[in-house]
Amino acid sequence: MEPPILMPDAFPADSVGLVTPQCMAFDEPVTLACGRTLDRYQLMYETYGTLNADRSNAVLICHALSGNHHAAGYHNADDRKPGWWDTCIGPGKPIDTNRFFVVCPNNLGGCHGSTGPASINPETGKPWGGDFPTLRVRDWVETQSRLADNLGIQRFAAIVGGSLGGMQVMRWALEHPERVAHAIVIASAMKLTAQNIAFNEIARRAIMTDPQFFDGHYLEHGTSPKTGLAIARMVGHTTYLSNDAMRDKFGRSLRTGTFERGIDAAVEFEVESYLRYQGDVFSEAFDANTYLLMTKALDYFDLAREYNDNPIEAFKKSLARFLVISFSSDWRFAPERSQEIVNALVGAGREVCYADIEANQGHDAFLLHIPRYLEVFSAYMQRIADEGFR
Amino acid sequence: MEPPILMPDAFPADSVGLVTPQCMAFDEPVTLACGRTLDRYQLMYETYGTLNADRSNAVLICHALSGNHHAAGYHNADDRKPGWWDTCIGPGKPIDTNRFFVVCPNNLGGCHGSTGPASINPETGKPWGGDFPTLRVRDWVETQSRLADNLGIQRFAAIVGGSLGGMQVMRWALEHPERVAHAIVIASAMKLTAQNIAFNEIARRAIMTDPQFFDGHYLEHGTSPKTGLAIARMVGHTTYLSNDAMRDKFGRSLRTGTFERGIDAAVEFEVESYLRYQGDVFSEAFDANTYLLMTKALDYFDLAREYNDNPIEAFKKSLARFLVISFSSDWRFAPERSQEIVNALVGAGREVCYADIEANQGHDAFLLHIPRYLEVFSAYMQRIADEGFR
Repeated sequence: MEPPILMPDAFPADSVGLVTPQCMAFDEPVTLACGRTLDRYQLMYETYGTLNADRSNAVLICHALSGNHHAAGYHNADDRKPGWWDTCIGPGKPIDTNRFFVVCPNNLGGCHGSTGPASINPETGKPWGGDFPTLRVRDWVETQSRLADNLGIQRFAAIVGGSLGGMQVMRWALEHPERVAHAIVIASAMKLTAQNIAFNEIARRAIMTDPQFFDGHYLEHGTSPKTGLAIARMVGHTTYLSNDAMRDKFGRSLRTGTFERGIDAAVEFEVESYLRYQGDVFSEAFDANTYLLMTKALDYFDLAREYNDNPIEAFKKSLARFLVISFSSDWRFAPERSQEIVNALVGAGREVCYADIEANQGHDAFLLHIPRYLEVFSAYMQRIADEGFR
Repeated sequence: MEPPILMPDAFPADSVGLVTPQCMAFDEPVTLACGRTLDRYQLMYETYGTLNADRSNAVLICHALSGNHHAAGYHNADDRKPGWWDTCIGPGKPIDTNRFFVVCPNNLGGCHGSTGPASINPETGKPWGGDFPTLRVRDWVETQSRLADNLGIQRFAAIVGGSLGGMQVMRWALEHPERVAHAIVIASAMKLTAQNIAFNEIARRAIMTDPQFFDGHYLEHGTSPKTGLAIARMVGHTTYLSNDAMRDKFGRSLRTGTFERGIDAAVEFEVESYLRYQGDVFSEAFDANTYLLMTKALDYFDLAREYNDNPIEAFKKSLARFLVISFSSDWRFAPERSQEIVNALVGAGREVCYADIEANQGHDAFLLHIPRYLEVFSAYMQRIADEGFR
């Protein structure tokens, strides 16, 4: 008997199907915002759909804190889970791969194949670890723009991102105004609040006080601060959901134990074991130094800092048309933060559409299948295509 | 020259002044909700004001997660800080010590002199550590009631508490209806939400994964999980404040470093160093096992569990009149939770006053000098006294 042939219909019809990550190596040095230089680096990326003849239909996806280049489709026939934004990317989906050519890189500093803290530092022959340069959002914009150059994409029909990804979108619009036709900023902010910084610092503290951290050089010690990273993920998971979402998902259901009097059994709520499990899974798959680097980039981002703290002045530099989306129950990137973006864009005389989506899933909503969100997003993207990607 | 004499005016006029903690030992065994028995235990407590002739003017203060028996006044002339609720207890303050006799115990399981995990287990001659029994709110009510017996207080004019303290107040009203004239429940809830449990679990996880935890037996190892406890405190501190309070207090002010491009200095926000400092201070002064025990008691509390999950049925057992207070920006014990209490009391036909205080300090507001809060609280307490403590 011959081995079974993988049929294309093994994947859902609206999936991009099997995808293969690609790697681009850069030999031109890049000087980072911190002043340090990387002589060479590589970026992993995936593409979906087909670049049209005049190279006008490209969409760049900027990922968030724990994202990577695998935004849609499957890496092999046995994959149970598609890429992290498969709800939004595929044939007939908001970012319709029948019409758009989608590029999604893993950011510099990432831990999924792009040069980052787990890569070998050519000067020492050991992993960079804690010596990897501090990155800013603008460094990602710069390296993404070089990836675009090499792919022959001069101008993106749209640059799209949620959360930290939205910060990259806004920075793109200021740094390379002529290269961004449409900027789509989802569940993001022009700068983090003190509360957001506090949660990031709790996460970092959990990682950095883990005895396996070794000042960031844990790989050289053949270990990693998994316990701390798991706690960091628990903080993220809890705060990226809403109070209502947690109530609907877990309530006060028990996993073990009983509240009966006279019984001294360990009582454990479902929410506790779920968070611990999620934290443990994440800590096996993600690099702690990348987590630190990404949270720092989040904290440091301040769109208007070099524009006299005036976001109107900042956005006057942009030429893109904007779509801004927020979610009603998102309390880490609250609708107010998106409205500040919209107000600044209006003040700068820029074209902007804004939708606040009623959804109880908190910050995580931007990754989820929320019909109203997908409708708004689809309608906007279709208009871009219908208007000839201008 | 003679040494200077400490003048009474060394303390503010509305302070209870110098106070001396007291200790009461109990030889009558107490069987706890978990089924285990403590043969003997002791409770630290303080009192302020004077018990009147008919013993009718007593007020019991129930403390919260990190509280203790030192609610008001000073332990010595050099104390820079008074007790934790000095804003509300003293001559002319809401709990006016010219009229009321105030009793504030350190709860069983505490770490300020009452029997708890750091006490010696008489069966082993070593600290209880992780072997100390799990406690429920009802265990505190039971042991507080025995303290009251020994002080000759049959009925409290009021039992008062914020947060976890408010849970004790409500349990008192159900367990000993005839002993509570007024129940004052501040910034509390009939049960925690999944989100609240999640934050407590993050705190516990930080403590229990600290390599110095030793399954709760750190004292026997001559150490303590300070790093984990400090992170736990950072979680508490961040979530007991509101987003607005953190913005007003810290904003994005920097403590060290600069965002100037080309400078790779460590940037630290004020909010980060503040939280770390607060965490470190707390971890020197508080016992980690007590923190675990208190957060578990918070999680486990569910007022109506044994009343068919019907809070109206539960409150029908009470005879007290209630004052319920919430704070507009408190998101861990949100106004909605207080309104659920009020609705249940109304449904049970009980007398209840309710005030939602506009305040941007989050959950911490119940400890702070917020004029409207103190006015409402004072007016209610004065009416109790004016009506003869009935």
